[in-house]
Amino acid sequence: MTREHIESTFRTIQDEICSGLEQLDGKAFFQEDNWQRDGGGGGRTRVISHGTLLEKGGVNFSAVHGELPAALKKEFGADNVQFFATGVSIVLHPVNPWVPIIHMNIRYFEMSSGESWFGGGIDLTPHYVRPQQADLFHQQMKNVCDRFNTEYYPKFSKWADDYFLIRHRNETRGIGGIFFDHLKPESESHKQSIFDFVCAVGRTFVPAYAEQVALNRNLPYGEREVKWQHLRRGRYVEFNLVYDRGTKFGLETNGRIESILMSLPETASWLYNYQPEPGSEEEKTLKYLQKVR
Amino acid sequence: MTREHIESTFRTIQDEICSGLEQLDGKAFFQEDNWQRDGGGGGRTRVISHGTLLEKGGVNFSAVHGELPAALKKEFGADNVQFFATGVSIVLHPVNPWVPIIHMNIRYFEMSSGESWFGGGIDLTPHYVRPQQADLFHQQMKNVCDRFNTEYYPKFSKWADDYFLIRHRNETRGIGGIFFDHLKPESESHKQSIFDFVCAVGRTFVPAYAEQVALNRNLPYGEREVKWQHLRRGRYVEFNLVYDRGTKFGLETNGRIESILMSLPETASWLYNYQPEPGSEEEKTLKYLQKVR
Repeated sequence: MTREHIESTFRTIQDEICSGLEQLDGKAFFQEDNWQRDGGGGGRTRVISHGTLLEKGGVNFSAVHGELPAALKKEFGADNVQFFATGVSIVLHPVNPWVPIIHMNIRYFEMSSGESWFGGGIDLTPHYVRPQQADLFHQQMKNVCDRFNTEYYPKFSKWADDYFLIRHRNETRGIGGIFFDHLKPESESHKQSIFDFVCAVGRTFVPAYAEQVALNRNLPYGEREVKWQHLRRGRYVEFNLVYDRGTKFGLETNGRIESILMSLPETASWLYNYQPEPGSEEEKTLKYLQKVR
Repeated sequence: MTREHIESTFRTIQDEICSGLEQLDGKAFFQEDNWQRDGGGGGRTRVISHGTLLEKGGVNFSAVHGELPAALKKEFGADNVQFFATGVSIVLHPVNPWVPIIHMNIRYFEMSSGESWFGGGIDLTPHYVRPQQADLFHQQMKNVCDRFNTEYYPKFSKWADDYFLIRHRNETRGIGGIFFDHLKPESESHKQSIFDFVCAVGRTFVPAYAEQVALNRNLPYGEREVKWQHLRRGRYVEFNLVYDRGTKFGLETNGRIESILMSLPETASWLYNYQPEPGSEEEKTLKYLQKVR
């Protein structure tokens, strides 16, 4: 399988997802920015805002290549190596606080030394955790994994729990999902099978989110729920700026800043030492996220 | 000079500053939280909110000691060493967008191996840069420096420009000020003189800010200025979570999270690829902050 084929399939997946999300939103449309990377390659950033469903969301495609950035030379213990990387990366911040924030990423990395691997995942960040809806989401993640390898879901859902952790608060970012990295093909047929899995993850994104949206988008909300939503978005900002590998990598390698930080919400809030009322929905959510998973 | 003397003077400076800021605000009062650190020592966090002048502000005092945290062992190349650290740290987010955000920190660090040093600084982050007011602020910083050493201001203001830089945007956080670290005494009298300088910096904070406040607190503002204020606060969040050494150190050493993150604003905002109108006050500010300093 050629990198051109992977790149063009990822581009198609971006198209499919944007079209699916526009239908789901019903009002707003994506705006597109094409950009070039100084060292080689570029991307197609698409942003939607002020929709009926989505307050701010980004679906980014990129395919970049060139000399391995200094930050990666160290990590990979490689020098004098050319790289190629392509991926689709998504974060959606909905209007209604009952609708969860969602994140998806699929990526492929290749080095001129011959190594290549895939990575990706989907995770859900409800402002208010509903355990039944969390189970439903996990079931969907399990379904897509099981179609390829029954060892994937147990491994990748644990990986998500470990990765999407706001360490300084001992809180998970949300209810998890799946996360995987460095899936290295051992043969051409193995590469095809991992690629098929990664594409299936990408194509599971819209239907999985649509289900969460359908369950929550018509629930009424007021000031109280919006205040809580903004506080939870504050936590999202903390995770992305302090821990998220993609964000850190982008900042360290002089990526296109507006594409990297399109994951941040339009509005976020921090209150000193805020403690939700005992017994409230807000407290239940906090306890759920703080439990040792 | 004993560490007890430094600690108690810093505590007094916290008292003086809180009292000065309450007078300046005229409505809100500081709430105090005393906390203990697991490894030794603790602190006195004071937070003010929803005042006439200050929307959210924190004035934190701490004096901690114990075994050197792992993160510092590496940095200092030291092992089996006890440390003592005390300091006062402040960030104020005003209500009126014409009034600047301000930050101040003074600190003292001591190791059982015998080394000790002081650090600190004050820097100003106007949402709207007014060059004349920036010059006034710098003049005040120069005045306090010159009373002790005429080499301080040129060195420490450059240090602030280098330190308070949002690298991924190539924007300074604000108009700078002074920043210094690792001022190591070479004798007891030298220690006294550095300590006097550090205390003078602490005691310059309220009058310097009062002047900025007086010039701006009664200026009218509307939705447009508040929107810009929230965007600039977003930049402040980016700096503090990605680059600020004190924040990173606190997060890595399991400090009291609410005291570390009290520097974050109540509300911050991110818009995708926002470009201020050509010729507007917002664009002038951006250009000022983006210029190579």
